[in-house]
Amino acid sequence: MSSSHTPHLLVVAHGSRRAASNQEIQHLVDRLLLSQTAFASISCGFLELAEPSIPDALRHIIDQGAKFIVVMPYFLSAGRHVSEDIPAEIAPVTAEHPDVKIVIADYLGAADGICKLLLSQANRSLV
Amino acid sequence: MSSSHTPHLLVVAHGSRRAASNQEIQHLVDRLLLSQTAFASISCGFLELAEPSIPDALRHIIDQGAKFIVVMPYFLSAGRHVSEDIPAEIAPVTAEHPDVKIVIADYLGAADGICKLLLSQANRSLV
Repeated sequence: MSSSHTPHLLVVAHGSRRAASNQEIQHLVDRLLLSQTAFASISCGFLELAEPSIPDALRHIIDQGAKFIVVMPYFLSAGRHVSEDIPAEIAPVTAEHPDVKIVIADYLGAADGICKLLLSQANRSLV
Repeated sequence: MSSSHTPHLLVVAHGSRRAASNQEIQHLVDRLLLSQTAFASISCGFLELAEPSIPDALRHIIDQGAKFIVVMPYFLSAGRHVSEDIPAEIAPVTAEHPDVKIVIADYLGAADGICKLLLSQANRSLV
């Protein structure tokens, strides 16, 4: 596949006033880049309180030639941020670039593996 | 092991004004109960905006005879809630019950498997 057809991944987090929390998301992206081959690029964007915004992050990916972007909400619950705010941030970029496919993945907390991950993390306190 | 020596698990979430978000945590607990054997009980508590509070949830577990409780912060980033607020909620209960061991597990976002889970969830948007 050419890079224009390979999907790009945008991890979307809430954003925090604490720089360390936002850096934690960038570190997550760095770790993701080391462990995957499916995406042409992986980057992050923030709903509020941090940069880049979701539209700016999407436009940056599109400027690189992306035609398919998966937006991954890095959230644990299906609140208003996931159901309304993130789609609202994406909508204007979709309107600007009708040739680019932007899909929103199900939020992280909905992943089948979340129970296993939680128990694994909790079990580490037992040893 | 008798139940008094078996660890109990308390999943601690932020809490939301949206009842559905708090119910999502209870559903998570229900799923955890179906998939594990290490803990004598699994329940949830909320840092704010929902009941039970963390101290109330801990006292309820202790009333059942627990001597060892693992508190699992269901948070994705290491913000003030994880580093300060959750320990501050636990402290008075520890003081009331010096015979009960209460340990705080590392927050969910710090789990080694978080990258794999995120990529797995993102990849589901590619099919």
